[in-house]
Amino acid sequence: MPAPIVVINPNSTEEVTRGIGAALEGLRFPGGPAIECLTLREGPPGIESQAQSDAVVAPLLALIASRETDAGAFVIACFSDPGLHAARERCRRPVFGIAESAMATALTRGERFGIVSILEASLPRHARAVRAAGLSERFAGDVAIGLGVTSLSSEQETYGRLLAAGETLRDARGADVLILGCAGMARYRARLEAAIGRPVIDPCQAAAALAVGLLAS
Amino acid sequence: MPAPIVVINPNSTEEVTRGIGAALEGLRFPGGPAIECLTLREGPPGIESQAQSDAVVAPLLALIASRETDAGAFVIACFSDPGLHAARERCRRPVFGIAESAMATALTRGERFGIVSILEASLPRHARAVRAAGLSERFAGDVAIGLGVTSLSSEQETYGRLLAAGETLRDARGADVLILGCAGMARYRARLEAAIGRPVIDPCQAAAALAVGLLAS
Amino acid sequence: MPAPIVVINPNSTEEVTRGIGAALEGLRFPGGPAIECLTLREGPPGIESQAQSDAVVAPLLALIASRETDAGAFVIACFSDPGLHAARERCRRPVFGIAESAMATALTRGERFGIVSILEASLPRHARAVRAAGLSERFAGDVAIGLGVTSLSSEQETYGRLLAAGETLRDARGADVLILGCAGMARYRARLEAAIGRPVIDPCQAAAALAVGLLAS
Amino acid sequence: MPAPIVVINPNSTEEVTRGIGAALEGLRFPGGPAIECLTLREGPPGIESQAQSDAVVAPLLALIASRETDAGAFVIACFSDPGLHAARERCRRPVFGIAESAMATALTRGERFGIVSILEASLPRHARAVRAAGLSERFAGDVAIGLGVTSLSSEQETYGRLLAAGETLRDARGADVLILGCAGMARYRARLEAAIGRPVIDPCQAAAALAVGLLAS
Amino acid sequence: MPAPIVVINPNSTEEVTRGIGAALEGLRFPGGPAIECLTLREGPPGIESQAQSDAVVAPLLALIASRETDAGAFVIACFSDPGLHAARERCRRPVFGIAESAMATALTRGERFGIVSILEASLPRHARAVRAAGLSERFAGDVAIGLGVTSLSSEQETYGRLLAAGETLRDARGADVLILGCAGMARYRARLEAAIGRPVIDPCQAAAALAVGLLAS
Amino acid sequence: MPAPIVVINPNSTEEVTRGIGAALEGLRFPGGPAIECLTLREGPPGIESQAQSDAVVAPLLALIASRETDAGAFVIACFSDPGLHAARERCRRPVFGIAESAMATALTRGERFGIVSILEASLPRHARAVRAAGLSERFAGDVAIGLGVTSLSSEQETYGRLLAAGETLRDARGADVLILGCAGMARYRARLEAAIGRPVIDPCQAAAALAVGLLAS
Repeated sequence: MPAPIVVINPNSTEEVTRGIGAALEGLRFPGGPAIECLTLREGPPGIESQAQSDAVVAPLLALIASRETDAGAFVIACFSDPGLHAARERCRRPVFGIAESAMATALTRGERFGIVSILEASLPRHARAVRAAGLSERFAGDVAIGLGVTSLSSEQETYGRLLAAGETLRDARGADVLILGCAGMARYRARLEAAIGRPVIDPCQAAAALAVGLLAS
Repeated sequence: MPAPIVVINPNSTEEVTRGIGAALEGLRFPGGPAIECLTLREGPPGIESQAQSDAVVAPLLALIASRETDAGAFVIACFSDPGLHAARERCRRPVFGIAESAMATALTRGERFGIVSILEASLPRHARAVRAAGLSERFAGDVAIGLGVTSLSSEQETYGRLLAAGETLRDARGADVLILGCAGMARYRARLEAAIGRPVIDPCQAAAALAVGLLAS
Repeated sequence: MPAPIVVINPNSTEEVTRGIGAALEGLRFPGGPAIECLTLREGPPGIESQAQSDAVVAPLLALIASRETDAGAFVIACFSDPGLHAARERCRRPVFGIAESAMATALTRGERFGIVSILEASLPRHARAVRAAGLSERFAGDVAIGLGVTSLSSEQETYGRLLAAGETLRDARGADVLILGCAGMARYRARLEAAIGRPVIDPCQAAAALAVGLLAS
Repeated sequence: MPAPIVVINPNSTEEVTRGIGAALEGLRFPGGPAIECLTLREGPPGIESQAQSDAVVAPLLALIASRETDAGAFVIACFSDPGLHAARERCRRPVFGIAESAMATALTRGERFGIVSILEASLPRHARAVRAAGLSERFAGDVAIGLGVTSLSSEQETYGRLLAAGETLRDARGADVLILGCAGMARYRARLEAAIGRPVIDPCQAAAALAVGLLAS
Repeated sequence: MPAPIVVINPNSTEEVTRGIGAALEGLRFPGGPAIECLTLREGPPGIESQAQSDAVVAPLLALIASRETDAGAFVIACFSDPGLHAARERCRRPVFGIAESAMATALTRGERFGIVSILEASLPRHARAVRAAGLSERFAGDVAIGLGVTSLSSEQETYGRLLAAGETLRDARGADVLILGCAGMARYRARLEAAIGRPVIDPCQAAAALAVGLLAS
Repeated sequence: MPAPIVVINPNSTEEVTRGIGAALEGLRFPGGPAIECLTLREGPPGIESQAQSDAVVAPLLALIASRETDAGAFVIACFSDPGLHAARERCRRPVFGIAESAMATALTRGERFGIVSILEASLPRHARAVRAAGLSERFAGDVAIGLGVTSLSSEQETYGRLLAAGETLRDARGADVLILGCAGMARYRARLEAAIGRPVIDPCQAAAALAVGLLAS
């Protein structure tokens, strides 16, 4: 029986973890690796700043270390990819960050990706991540919807803003593939994709799929 | 039952197709999409030049068109990604190229990827592909082993050259993740990875994993 | 007597070939290389997709091969540069693509080039070409006029759209040199240049001039 | 009297802090801002991994917050720039990272900078920092001397390795300006600069100078 | 007593030199290097073209040579950085250009810098400078206020245009740090910074601060 | 009768001008534009530094201005492209620089160009030019032969060094097209091209060909 993929939601909001778990349902194949979704109790309700992202690294590394023996791979399920490189240094298992995975996946679905972010304050953080990934030539832009992680559950409001942001990215920035810039938006993916007419990538699905592929190769 | 992933080997060498099929065995999950591997009869025994790559596009598009109704996604299993963009224009299903998929996947496994190629003549073609993908900042180099597609079966010779090329990429070019630059090398992947001590990516596995992930999301 | 420059229009529309021939009239110097303009009979009426571009490669290579002995250089006169790299692999003579030649020439006439394209669907193809050429830092943008190759003869309509596209590139995208993104627009070049007040480059003239220069050096 | 510049050594080794203080002596002008050098007690003896770099962010932010009212600017004196962007989000005062400051300063002293690092494991971290800064075109390379932060005090050994690394960067990588890739190497700067014949930048001095300049402008 | 920093205004307008001197007042520390501001008599009233920039190089080099023995460092106080690289070749002392220094400094104050220029004609010159510096990934844009060097003294008009340009760079181009693209605008710096809510860098102050830092290190 | 192309050798060595004239013989077509080669009397015997390059701009602009009425285009025949952008600002005629023209032309002849320079001191100047042109992705390297402009006439010595430099660029740097980095090397071009087995571009021929092409289009 293959070792499980351990997906860690570094914020403490269980509802987000449950949403991630639901989003990954299709990747749980009989005979394939189990996909466990854990909540980092020490995390804040939502990670909305670089400071919060940095603050969860220590407990996140501890949680990863506690599962290193039995896990096949780890996914850090926050779009800031907190602790990604630290975890890779310390852990013998492959570790995937959802932002990095989503950007990598987007390269195979379109010419230029746009990011739909939650808060305006995330944009400089994402800009650094795009540059650090060396992907500026494929980056169309980043538009924030102005809602925090824990507000994403008000469905109608969230979807309306996602749609507007997606249209801006497609029409004014030239994006032909979109990335949901947060771990908690998966349930809007298919609907948004249909409305925008361009592929929309959920970053947790992208990372988990890469992990499944790696463990099965 | 989910629609199958259709993997097309654009060269006419059945042995290569069988090798691809074997490499993808782990990605065939009960309940997951079937993975069919087809040989393009009209292709040459091996694609070793831009001209051969361009020449297979028309029959490849025809084969893709003949399966568009029932397939869930397509993989073009040649490291030149022949017809990739043409297929995307024409086909309503997602189409993955193995070179593009391998480079995208490599971004999640190391800082700079090296490519182990078969023939010296492939290097300019790969250089253009890296630039077209906008990935020059992540590219460490490309080393050819000097064997054509159809010579890859002489196992000991091939492995020895792969190892030497991998060591050059790791030690002299600073690659910390390697890509096998041909569809027919998967059986050397695990052994090379163990010897080099760095992740080694088989491009067919990378593309098929992205296709599985997409269909399951 | 110097070997001729063989210019091949890879679409089958003779009127386009005649237009190219007329555009190159000034480059036919007494004592200089003859410039022959051929129509690729096997081509479609116009090349408006990646698939069509790939489809002409095989007959194009055959035509080039048939003239390799006596020609001094070849020009592939389609803005998708079909078969350019394949031809270079196979042919001992220099081969010029009109898109590549136009972009290279534009570097000597302004800071950032804009492309006036025929169809919206060409834009991703051109974007890949700009990235593959490593010229993203000099690229201002690409605006389509929404007319197919064979519609370019309706002169007033075409010119009006070219002018509007050129103004957008100059005023909103910061282009200070324009490239006509199609082999069949040369007759609008001078008029557009005068109206826009910026250099306008016809790609067939750019490629043929490079070929003349090479053969005379 | 101007507000002081607060320089924080995020490792707990007082000797490193004293060395930084000594290195900044020349920037303490009568009438200019005081330069205080603090040790982060919660830090490890030396920061030699991404994990250690991330782990100091929380106490570092707390220390910065405790001085926000009276400080004029902050310098984070570790070449991993831990917490730099988090501090900028949270703090109303300017915050300088020594790696970022050194790279910026190097742009004014040569064409391509090389980094002399302490440990091989730092290289991927630095590579990400260079890319995140968008400075790949100006980066010549990074050579490690294979000594940890706390071993830098064995003077003769350290200097010999710095010299060898500097010569490699100058002669084999084309660097014409060097950066000391650690906060604790300032006392070798002048000697190394004289021996190599190229400017050598101490990152703490670079950051403090930018802070002095900012407060005095 | 430390050797002085010699700041040369390469235009002949004494009022500009006096303004530069006033801008650098805060960097004149007791015990620190003196900062002398000289006017290049042979310069034009204002440098507003590449031709004028090139024309001042010879007398500028002569002036630098005449002070090479006693000066500690030189600053060329014109945003075209005339003669910067020539001076570096010839002069044993460090030479700073104000544009290069301002761009380097801006990297430490924000993600993407915008330039507020005086004349539209400067934009291509600045675009070349940004590319030559390898800083395109950090460049947000350049907006001209349409006033020549010698018109900058009409304070209300100038400030109004600076503010409008700054708002455009911040809101439409995504700049989060601004550079004053002329040596004679320092007196607007603080006011503009307060109004725009983003750091505003005076290039003369940036260069002089780097020189002070270098001499004191 | 078409307006002539005025080629200006900005150094005062008549032998260099004669060499340029000879190199351009093939581009003088009956009925085509005349190609006049002028020596800038005010120039130094050879331009081997940025300072010398800047110093010739003023007399060069004066010479260009004196011919603006009757010339069709200008070529500045020094690999530092002195005064190129100044001339473009001032002159209504097209102006070509030989370095810029050679790099542009090289894009059409290979994947990555190498430059064979005369003196080591030229390399930083060329590095800036490559970056300013936005062509770093296509640049393989620059190797100096260690001979000044006026020493290039000792034929055997010069050729031997050119060959060695070319081999280094081809074999160790991956260049597949070479540029002669000086106006006075044309007579070695064909021989070097044959020996190296890669296209070798003479920059004066490249620029003059672009000028001929422009005037004939």
